[in-house]
Amino acid sequence: MSKPIHIGLVGATGYAGGELLRLLAARDDVCVSAITSERAKGQHVTDFYPTLRGWLDLSFMAPSSDALADCDVVFFATPHGVAMNLVPDLLAAGKRIIDLSADFRLRDAELWSKWYGQPHAAPDLLAEAVYGLPELSRAGIADARIVAVPGCYPTSTLLGLKPLLEASAIDTGDIIADAKTGVSGAGRTSKPAFAFSEVAESMHAYGVAGHRHLPEIQQALGWSANETVGLTFVPHLVPMIRGMEVTIYVRQTGSSDPQAVFEAAYADEPFVGVVPAGSQPATAHVRATNNAMVSVTSVGGDRLVVTSVIDNLLKGAAGQALQCLNLMIGAPETASLAAPTALP
Amino acid sequence: MSKPIHIGLVGATGYAGGELLRLLAARDDVCVSAITSERAKGQHVTDFYPTLRGWLDLSFMAPSSDALADCDVVFFATPHGVAMNLVPDLLAAGKRIIDLSADFRLRDAELWSKWYGQPHAAPDLLAEAVYGLPELSRAGIADARIVAVPGCYPTSTLLGLKPLLEASAIDTGDIIADAKTGVSGAGRTSKPAFAFSEVAESMHAYGVAGHRHLPEIQQALGWSANETVGLTFVPHLVPMIRGMEVTIYVRQTGSSDPQAVFEAAYADEPFVGVVPAGSQPATAHVRATNNAMVSVTSVGGDRLVVTSVIDNLLKGAAGQALQCLNLMIGAPETASLAAPTALP
Amino acid sequence: MSKPIHIGLVGATGYAGGELLRLLAARDDVCVSAITSERAKGQHVTDFYPTLRGWLDLSFMAPSSDALADCDVVFFATPHGVAMNLVPDLLAAGKRIIDLSADFRLRDAELWSKWYGQPHAAPDLLAEAVYGLPELSRAGIADARIVAVPGCYPTSTLLGLKPLLEASAIDTGDIIADAKTGVSGAGRTSKPAFAFSEVAESMHAYGVAGHRHLPEIQQALGWSANETVGLTFVPHLVPMIRGMEVTIYVRQTGSSDPQAVFEAAYADEPFVGVVPAGSQPATAHVRATNNAMVSVTSVGGDRLVVTSVIDNLLKGAAGQALQCLNLMIGAPETASLAAPTALP
Amino acid sequence: MSKPIHIGLVGATGYAGGELLRLLAARDDVCVSAITSERAKGQHVTDFYPTLRGWLDLSFMAPSSDALADCDVVFFATPHGVAMNLVPDLLAAGKRIIDLSADFRLRDAELWSKWYGQPHAAPDLLAEAVYGLPELSRAGIADARIVAVPGCYPTSTLLGLKPLLEASAIDTGDIIADAKTGVSGAGRTSKPAFAFSEVAESMHAYGVAGHRHLPEIQQALGWSANETVGLTFVPHLVPMIRGMEVTIYVRQTGSSDPQAVFEAAYADEPFVGVVPAGSQPATAHVRATNNAMVSVTSVGGDRLVVTSVIDNLLKGAAGQALQCLNLMIGAPETASLAAPTALP
Repeated sequence: MSKPIHIGLVGATGYAGGELLRLLAARDDVCVSAITSERAKGQHVTDFYPTLRGWLDLSFMAPSSDALADCDVVFFATPHGVAMNLVPDLLAAGKRIIDLSADFRLRDAELWSKWYGQPHAAPDLLAEAVYGLPELSRAGIADARIVAVPGCYPTSTLLGLKPLLEASAIDTGDIIADAKTGVSGAGRTSKPAFAFSEVAESMHAYGVAGHRHLPEIQQALGWSANETVGLTFVPHLVPMIRGMEVTIYVRQTGSSDPQAVFEAAYADEPFVGVVPAGSQPATAHVRATNNAMVSVTSVGGDRLVVTSVIDNLLKGAAGQALQCLNLMIGAPETASLAAPTALP
Repeated sequence: MSKPIHIGLVGATGYAGGELLRLLAARDDVCVSAITSERAKGQHVTDFYPTLRGWLDLSFMAPSSDALADCDVVFFATPHGVAMNLVPDLLAAGKRIIDLSADFRLRDAELWSKWYGQPHAAPDLLAEAVYGLPELSRAGIADARIVAVPGCYPTSTLLGLKPLLEASAIDTGDIIADAKTGVSGAGRTSKPAFAFSEVAESMHAYGVAGHRHLPEIQQALGWSANETVGLTFVPHLVPMIRGMEVTIYVRQTGSSDPQAVFEAAYADEPFVGVVPAGSQPATAHVRATNNAMVSVTSVGGDRLVVTSVIDNLLKGAAGQALQCLNLMIGAPETASLAAPTALP
Repeated sequence: MSKPIHIGLVGATGYAGGELLRLLAARDDVCVSAITSERAKGQHVTDFYPTLRGWLDLSFMAPSSDALADCDVVFFATPHGVAMNLVPDLLAAGKRIIDLSADFRLRDAELWSKWYGQPHAAPDLLAEAVYGLPELSRAGIADARIVAVPGCYPTSTLLGLKPLLEASAIDTGDIIADAKTGVSGAGRTSKPAFAFSEVAESMHAYGVAGHRHLPEIQQALGWSANETVGLTFVPHLVPMIRGMEVTIYVRQTGSSDPQAVFEAAYADEPFVGVVPAGSQPATAHVRATNNAMVSVTSVGGDRLVVTSVIDNLLKGAAGQALQCLNLMIGAPETASLAAPTALP
Repeated sequence: MSKPIHIGLVGATGYAGGELLRLLAARDDVCVSAITSERAKGQHVTDFYPTLRGWLDLSFMAPSSDALADCDVVFFATPHGVAMNLVPDLLAAGKRIIDLSADFRLRDAELWSKWYGQPHAAPDLLAEAVYGLPELSRAGIADARIVAVPGCYPTSTLLGLKPLLEASAIDTGDIIADAKTGVSGAGRTSKPAFAFSEVAESMHAYGVAGHRHLPEIQQALGWSANETVGLTFVPHLVPMIRGMEVTIYVRQTGSSDPQAVFEAAYADEPFVGVVPAGSQPATAHVRATNNAMVSVTSVGGDRLVVTSVIDNLLKGAAGQALQCLNLMIGAPETASLAAPTALP
């Protein structure tokens, strides 16, 4: 076996970072050689993730380029605004970057500034960054220096629309996406709003008037459609830990068979399944896996309803990041990711 | 105090029936004098509802007109197809009927037959039956011989659209309602699909291609709109016991202030609250109460998003039935129903 | 109707305080005239409890004796260490006190200091304070100036043991109580440990080596037993919002029929039910009510197993506090508390 | 690579059977060549387990020796009473058996008959069957013709007591085990008692007066103790899908350090972790893995409290069965089982 790829992680104290560490710890061909975190520096990784005892023996270092000097690839699992300040130096030192945060997802620095409330620190790199959705840009990811891993909402929405957009089979002016997420999407936070007693036995919409997911979803849909799309997007918080479901309402144009369009589009995709016509995927069917499942149903007239499910922390974050890594280092794309879910 | 009203219940072995018994048991002005059930005959009510010990001392009788001879008002909490066969005789005997099942909800007997797969046994009574949504037909309910209590999906959807429809403020040709329900809506059933292990930590859409709620919702919306409405309706199952949320997507016509339209429409309604602009109601805020809460948000262009929450077993079934009873017997409309929810 | 009793609440920004406000808001004979909170001063009660809109129109004031000058009875729903500093002045001003915190629960000031890590500020009042468990000291509560409302663990444990202790029917030297609580017992907190994603789909023991509930439970058991009892107590956190179950392991002495002992002991108690022999109470059967349910089973030899369930926020806190108020002001003991639970 | 081992499964339509199929499907060294089920015959495995699409292409056959003729090892994931009738013929045909049901767990045929209400069909084989807990009888399993895989309650309880029993460090006459299980332990059943609406937001004890787990646990504890043990065992149902926690109350004899006893006993066990002194394991830390975690705490006097957690479907059923298979076929004991849990 060849020398393992050395991996660095910046800021891996949240849920996505933990899942990334879990998946990386099981690999022989890659090796986590540095993890950094300002607030966790000096603490052992098992203080944050006791279940990794025996799997990973590392302590957090203070974030710096030195700490990451031996790494070939650096993951960022940080809040927005961190990666963009550190990436230029890391690139200069020859590292490749996989960023799970929002810093390199939007191509337009002004749009980014508007939604994230601060100037972008590395606007020159935005054009280079590759959007890390393998089903959209597999080849680009393989060669990228910077991969911007999509958020969970854009991933699930795009997987539900890409076949129809690429087949020019729907009206792109009026798309409605009603999304539902499990609570872990909020991160490893201590906000009272995500306390068990507040969230269990309840659900509600949020961010109805617009939030940061919107421009990213619109940008990605636009790439598939080759034109600007009109999108109404409403997320909801649902009492489950993991899982995301998006129900998408579109109008069909033309006379293609939507089920056939989906089955053809995803025939060779290792992580995207199309459920049999007439059935609907459940989030439990992809729980804690990198899999996505989609369905499409004609409900009368030209109206189509698409449903799409993913695990928000894996295909919506850490799993997809690892899928990108596999492409970047020439490993099998499914390495350490191919698995059916544990049921129930 | 005057002589209490005598109440009969047919088929009260499910969740809605249980909630009805609980609410009735606390009343002084009404008295449950007979409960009937083919499968439960001979069993005591506390065999089904141990928490009613000390509140109600009755045993189930076999269903018959004799068993209900002393009743002034008879509730049906039965599967569809039962009430329509028994109601004619009960009416002839001078009883008034509050039917929680689907038998008298649709005005059109053919439409009913199509969706319920059997001929309607009492088509002549459909025109007389009053749809039991007090916010829509308060006066009619008060005088009715037969009240058809709406289902939970129609109730939550109609409360979210009625102000806009009556103000002619939206395009009625293209309404989308994305609904999410707690599991108790499936009833006290033993189907594996509703087992804890199948439902917890999961969610999914169902009935996407159309089901029995659709014609009822369309009929009720049509009454408010005074024209046929175009509706796409997709229900979802969410891992919570009680609660229903509907997110509705419409296009505004004209220039009225939607928030003001809602606040004016519901200013005098005892059970419908309009949340402050910019906030969204959660199902926990109405749990185990007869309350509904709605919001309306303009999300850009002419697109409005309405969210509406109810408790599926109370405002969506037993509570609404009792609200109808209160109107029918001249009791205060809020009797035994006015209460804030227990939180959390 | 006579002039309503004026009620003040100190620190009602948590879950127990919210439930107290909900229960008080529905009363005609009492009137909440002041609520105080250092951190919430100036905010309206509906900012914390939106579901009380229309039920209570009050804003929080800064805590002070002046703010409570018009009150007849003052409730404390504060962390420990607050009430003991304010109560002496309030007593001097003629107020009666119902304290939901731990400040007046232990008779022994030194023991209190040891477990709560600070000197007691009003040790002279400890002997006067009446332990607010009506099933134990109904008469004393009625006449009390200070009532110390028990915690949820002592309430559920004592209700499960009192009949056996008073009948001298068990070995008091070796009692084991294995307790399980819903998450709301941790309060309206933002600690990560109580986040939905941490707590759902998991359970664990905590505080095994001993914590603050232990001396309070031992003291209360000792009163019933008329001697010091030996107790091992282990609490567990369970993924439900509300509810508490305690399974108690004791050794029977003598030959009485345990079921008969329980039924006789609780025959006249309005809130304590003994389930039929051979069945076990579920927390859902008392959810959001002031009810308790207990069972006792002989499992071979002299070993008895008792199970006891309550709602931790009502019979374990706010409901019991209101039951005490009813006794203190001569209202019916069950006023605003008598209700079967909503199921499911 | 050598020729894969051929595996047959009898009755794999439940949760444990599904997990077994999932784990086996990922293996290269073993191959599932036959699955049989009376009620599922003719149906494809993906009709029961849609998430195995792409992983396993097999249909259920009617149960018979012929159907299993090509198998080297046959698993039974059937209700009790099935395996004992089929195993003799399969042994005669040279197959080895791994039985997840209760049929071969008890050594005493009369005791088995008493608890399972029927004569045992193969009493002569009971002495030969090896109890499939590798931590107890690793060598025996490797050579066995019949392995009786323990239930989840015996597994978790035994792992919590074995070090203390083998060290003769506790009083064996009075052991109390208070166990809590997730709902999937009830199997893929449609009983109303396990419906989401009945189980969520509730917990309760069951089987307090004794049930089938008791003799099996006592037998296994007796093997570790080399004497008959006195056991009180009370199981509880908790609202989570997977997971089992047992809290065990014992009296220490002698002066060994319990933490050291546990750490020494499990130092080389690949699946059993001892948590640091003062902490308690949570079921989430072993969810959907074959891992177990235990703690021991001295709580005063001679009283010790042990807590033990497993995943009821893996270490409590399918995972342990696969661990036994690994031992039997000379594969690494951890093959396809070594993994940290996905969190949260």
